[in-house]
Amino acid sequence: MKAPVTNAQRLFGELLGTALLLAVVIGSGLMAERLSGGNVAVALLANTLATVGGLYILIEVFGPVSGAHFNPAVSLAMALRGELPWARLAGYVPAQLLGAALGAVLAHAMFDLPLLQVSAKLRTGTGQWIAEAVATAGLLLVILRAPQARVAAMVAAYIGAAYWFTASTSFANPAAVFGRMFSDSFAGIAPASAPAFMLAEVLGAGLGLLLHRALGRPVCA
Amino acid sequence: MKAPVTNAQRLFGELLGTALLLAVVIGSGLMAERLSGGNVAVALLANTLATVGGLYILIEVFGPVSGAHFNPAVSLAMALRGELPWARLAGYVPAQLLGAALGAVLAHAMFDLPLLQVSAKLRTGTGQWIAEAVATAGLLLVILRAPQARVAAMVAAYIGAAYWFTASTSFANPAAVFGRMFSDSFAGIAPASAPAFMLAEVLGAGLGLLLHRALGRPVCA
Amino acid sequence: MKAPVTNAQRLFGELLGTALLLAVVIGSGLMAERLSGGNVAVALLANTLATVGGLYILIEVFGPVSGAHFNPAVSLAMALRGELPWARLAGYVPAQLLGAALGAVLAHAMFDLPLLQVSAKLRTGTGQWIAEAVATAGLLLVILRAPQARVAAMVAAYIGAAYWFTASTSFANPAAVFGRMFSDSFAGIAPASAPAFMLAEVLGAGLGLLLHRALGRPVCA
Amino acid sequence: MKAPVTNAQRLFGELLGTALLLAVVIGSGLMAERLSGGNVAVALLANTLATVGGLYILIEVFGPVSGAHFNPAVSLAMALRGELPWARLAGYVPAQLLGAALGAVLAHAMFDLPLLQVSAKLRTGTGQWIAEAVATAGLLLVILRAPQARVAAMVAAYIGAAYWFTASTSFANPAAVFGRMFSDSFAGIAPASAPAFMLAEVLGAGLGLLLHRALGRPVCA
Repeated sequence: MKAPVTNAQRLFGELLGTALLLAVVIGSGLMAERLSGGNVAVALLANTLATVGGLYILIEVFGPVSGAHFNPAVSLAMALRGELPWARLAGYVPAQLLGAALGAVLAHAMFDLPLLQVSAKLRTGTGQWIAEAVATAGLLLVILRAPQARVAAMVAAYIGAAYWFTASTSFANPAAVFGRMFSDSFAGIAPASAPAFMLAEVLGAGLGLLLHRALGRPVCA
Repeated sequence: MKAPVTNAQRLFGELLGTALLLAVVIGSGLMAERLSGGNVAVALLANTLATVGGLYILIEVFGPVSGAHFNPAVSLAMALRGELPWARLAGYVPAQLLGAALGAVLAHAMFDLPLLQVSAKLRTGTGQWIAEAVATAGLLLVILRAPQARVAAMVAAYIGAAYWFTASTSFANPAAVFGRMFSDSFAGIAPASAPAFMLAEVLGAGLGLLLHRALGRPVCA
Repeated sequence: MKAPVTNAQRLFGELLGTALLLAVVIGSGLMAERLSGGNVAVALLANTLATVGGLYILIEVFGPVSGAHFNPAVSLAMALRGELPWARLAGYVPAQLLGAALGAVLAHAMFDLPLLQVSAKLRTGTGQWIAEAVATAGLLLVILRAPQARVAAMVAAYIGAAYWFTASTSFANPAAVFGRMFSDSFAGIAPASAPAFMLAEVLGAGLGLLLHRALGRPVCA
Repeated sequence: MKAPVTNAQRLFGELLGTALLLAVVIGSGLMAERLSGGNVAVALLANTLATVGGLYILIEVFGPVSGAHFNPAVSLAMALRGELPWARLAGYVPAQLLGAALGAVLAHAMFDLPLLQVSAKLRTGTGQWIAEAVATAGLLLVILRAPQARVAAMVAAYIGAAYWFTASTSFANPAAVFGRMFSDSFAGIAPASAPAFMLAEVLGAGLGLLLHRALGRPVCA
C-alpha cells in the first residue's frame, strides 16, 4: 500500500539526505585526519572512499523520496529544465543548506568536538575556481546523461574521481560549501573562500547544461 | 529440484554467515595490524575494504537462506515490522551470537593465535554512543529502502563509509560487538564497553524505523 | 553468426585466462614491491585491488568460453557435481597449470626480470593451512550460490576480502600455487610449501561442497 | 524527442571525452604527487582509483554519443572489424589527439601550473614495450567480449588492474601517450619514448583481435 510522497516528505528527504552527506564527508575527514598521522594522501584516499560509498547509498535511498539532489546547483538546473517546479526549488535550497549545517554538527557530536565551528581553511585562486566549475559541469553531465538505474553508482564514481583530478577536491555543491564552512577540520572551507566557490559551481552547472545540449539527445536507460 | 528452506537451515545460515562475517572483520584487522607497521589509517583502509567485499558476498550468498541478517538489531526490527515471526527471532539471536564468537575463534586459528581471548580495548564516551546509534539507524534505512537486487551492494557500501564517518568505526550490530569482545586485537572491544554499544545500536535501529516511516512509502525495486 | 565453442577453444580459454590471472597477481605484486618502499600493507592493498579488478574481467571474458575456472579445485568440484565431464577435467587441469607457469614468465618479461625463477618464500604452519581450506571452501560457496549475472563480481569481491582475512592471503587455487612457485617475488611461494597448500585447498573445496549441500537449494538468479 | 547523433556531435564527443579522460589521469597524478610526500605506491593507488572512477563514467556518458573510444588503437580495430566506417576513423583520430592535449592543458589550469609543458620522463625498455602490447591486447579483449551493459565497468576495472600488473602502468592508448607528453608530471612521458609506446599499443591491439578470433564467438549480453 503506497501513497504519493508529500511535499513535507520531499523537503525532509533533502534535509536529512544532505545532513547525512555532510556528516559522511566531514566525519570521514575527521577520522582520516586522526588516524593518518599527517599522511595527507592516505587521509584523502579514506575520505574519498567513504564519500563514494556514502553518496551511492544516499542517492539510492533518497532518490525515490526527493530526487536526492542534496545540491542547490543541481536543483537549479532541474528547475531550468522544467523538471523541478520553481516553487519546489524555493523549498529545496533552504532545506539543503540547513541540512548541510546540521550534518557538520552531527559529525562534530560523533567525534566529541565543539558542535559549532567555523573553518579557517582558505581555499582560493584561479585554479581552484576553474576546478570547481569543471567539477560541477561534469557532475551535471553525469546526472543528465546517466541511465536511471546507474545514476547513483555513476555520481558516486564521478565524485570519487573528482576528489583527485580537480585541484579543489571537488566540492561541486554550494550546500556542501555551506556545511563545510562550519567545520574547522580536514574538509572545511573558510567563509571568506565560500562565495567564489559557490559562484564557480553555479557557472559550472550552466556549462554542464550547455555541454549536455551540444552532445545531443539523452541516452535511454 | 528445489525444496523450501528448513528452519534448521535458516539457523545454520545465520550462524555460519555471522561467523564468516566476524572472521572477515577480525581476520582482516589482524592482517592489517601485522602489515601496517603502526600506520593506523592504512590498517583501517584494509580492514574496511575486506569488510565491504566480505559483507557483499555474504549477504548475496546467505540472503536466500536466512535473510542474511547476521545482526540481532536487524532481526528485531524485522520482527517489529511483522517480517520475521517472533518465534524465529528467538532462534536467530542466539545463532548470531554463537556464530559471532565462533568467527573470532576461526580468525585466531588462521593467524596462529590463542583461540580464546578477551579484548582490553575500551571504546566509550558520548561521541561513540551517538556514532553507534547513527550507524545503526543508517543501516536500517538502507536495508528497508534498498531495491532488493541492490541490497547487498548497498549495505556493504554503507558499512564501508560508516567505518570512517562514525567515530566508533560503526559496529552497528550487537552480534558484532559480542564477537569482537573475544578478540584482543585491532577490531576488539572490551566487555565493559559492550553493553552501552549494544544499547545505542538498538536505540539507533528504532530511530531508523521511525525515519523510514517518516520518509513514506518504500521504493519499488 | 555464432558457432559452438570447440574443445580446443575451451582449453585455450583456461590456459590463457589462468596465464593472465597469474600475470595480474604476480605483476601487481612486483609493481607494489617496487613502489611501496617496504610498506607491506600498502603493497598488499595494491596487489588486492589489481587482483579484484583483473579477476572480475577475466571471469566475465572467459566465462562464456570455458567457464572461467582457472582453478583445478573448482574444476574438480564441478566434475564431482556432474557439471564438467571427467574427460574435460583431464584437459582443464594441465591447461591451468601450464597457463599459470606461463603467466609468471609473462609477468617477469614485463618487469625485465629473469624469466625463469623459483620462489624461496616459505609459507607454512597450521594457521596457513586452515586459512587455505577456509579460503577455498568460501570460494566454492560463492561460485555455487552466486546468481549467474553476479558471479564474476562476487568471486572478485570475495578474493579481495580473502587476501586480508585469511592468514595466507588466500591462494585458494592449486594452479595459483603452482604458478607462484615460479616467481621469487612478493606473490611467490617456495616449492617446499606448495603441496600442503594444494592439499588444504582440495580439502577446503570438499568442505565447500558439503556446506553448500547443508544450506539447501541453490538460489535462482 | 530524440534526433540521431550527428557526425559533429560524434567528433565533439570523442574530443571532449578524451580531454576529460586525460584531465582525470594527469590531474589525479598531480594531486597524488602533491599529497603523497614521495610515497609512490600511495600516489599510484590514488591515480588508479581516480582513473577507474573517471573512465567508468566517461564510457557510460559518451558511449551513446560516439562509442566512447577515446583511443586511436580501439578506433582502428573497430574500423578493421567493419564497425566504424573508415571515413569516420579519419575524423576520430585527430579529435582524440587534440582532445588529449587539451586535457593536459585543462589539468594544468586547475593546478595553477604552466599550461604548456613537455614531459622529461623517459619510459623505455623491452619490458615496458611488452607491457604496453599486453595491456592493449587485454583492453581489446575486454571491449570486444564484454556484455554491452557492463562494458564501462569492465574497461574501468581492467585499466585499474593494468595500472599495476603491467610494468608500464598501462597507457594502452596512443592518444593517452600523446596527451601525457604534454605534462611534465607523475603521469607524463617524454616525447622520445612515445613512438615505441604507440607502436607497441597498435601491435597489441592486433594481438587482441587475433586472440578474440581464436577464442570463438562473442558472448551475448
